[in-house]
Amino acid sequence: MREDAEGKKVLVIQTHGIDTPRRTYSPLFYAMAAASMDMEVLVWFTMDGTSQLKKGAAEKIKLDPESDVTLRTMLERTKEEGVKLYVCQQSMTLFGMTEEDLLDGVEIMGAATIIDLTLGADVVMYF
Amino acid sequence: MREDAEGKKVLVIQTHGIDTPRRTYSPLFYAMAAASMDMEVLVWFTMDGTSQLKKGAAEKIKLDPESDVTLRTMLERTKEEGVKLYVCQQSMTLFGMTEEDLLDGVEIMGAATIIDLTLGADVVMYF
Amino acid sequence: MREDAEGKKVLVIQTHGIDTPRRTYSPLFYAMAAASMDMEVLVWFTMDGTSQLKKGAAEKIKLDPESDVTLRTMLERTKEEGVKLYVCQQSMTLFGMTEEDLLDGVEIMGAATIIDLTLGADVVMYF
Repeated sequence: MREDAEGKKVLVIQTHGIDTPRRTYSPLFYAMAAASMDMEVLVWFTMDGTSQLKKGAAEKIKLDPESDVTLRTMLERTKEEGVKLYVCQQSMTLFGMTEEDLLDGVEIMGAATIIDLTLGADVVMYF
Repeated sequence: MREDAEGKKVLVIQTHGIDTPRRTYSPLFYAMAAASMDMEVLVWFTMDGTSQLKKGAAEKIKLDPESDVTLRTMLERTKEEGVKLYVCQQSMTLFGMTEEDLLDGVEIMGAATIIDLTLGADVVMYF
Repeated sequence: MREDAEGKKVLVIQTHGIDTPRRTYSPLFYAMAAASMDMEVLVWFTMDGTSQLKKGAAEKIKLDPESDVTLRTMLERTKEEGVKLYVCQQSMTLFGMTEEDLLDGVEIMGAATIIDLTLGADVVMYF
């Protein structure tokens, strides 16, 4: 089925953040897997997912204590694979985050945009 | 992309309830955003999501302590936007809720119905 | 709408496990409902969902203390309905599970496979 995957649009929605570390790596892993299959991939952080993108936060999340890899490493690798990262404007407001708090390379978008993006995507994955 | 959105069917599935207040507002917010784009929107409460719909429960959930807005306010606004609210019959049974416990304006449906609804929807959002 | 359902492919993604018992029964219940509608149904266990499939784990999860039904019963019934169970290879590695730990009748698949499966499914449900 791999050939069909090429060029398809994947939208990964991440609603979980640093309070649930075990829910943070895998969505990025799936995003990278899709990118490696030449799909166009976008991760949308909303609700508690926004907490991952606060400067200084992701460095503190590590699933394997014996590894140097942190959630920050995972986020950087995801960007390096060509995956675009977006954050929900309304969730930032709801949870008291400002644009200055945000990691570089993350774009802010409103809720209406995500509705449009889900309509245009070939696959939407919710985590 | 807005024009494409008009008339499309959106199904929002809410599996979280009053034990996780931070997961309760945003799905309703997305539902309202879709409704304001002239989409046909339906929210399906299942699993712990059913707890939001118990009489007297949503009034006690408030994300911003300085605001008068509660989860109950959000649910009422969602209905006012023309969004239909459904609850899963089997989840009500599993978690010991009866029809008398339910807020007004919420319709009870079985699991087979939700399978049908997902097949007929243009977008399904899981929270 | 039932006739339309027949033969359609449903993929249920379960990311929750034995740490959140109340999130374990319903996804299997939906899978069985879809199977009873003559749909082709597959459940993919990833992230903490993998913990359900560890030998000896599901027997200890019971939602109704007065019933003999455990999560293990639910998993067996789901298989009996013809639903196929898959587990994410990378999640097993991440959470320290080996093939020997797995219940019988569960197939191990990689992340790229799940991307392919989501592309080929008529409905994907995320829990």
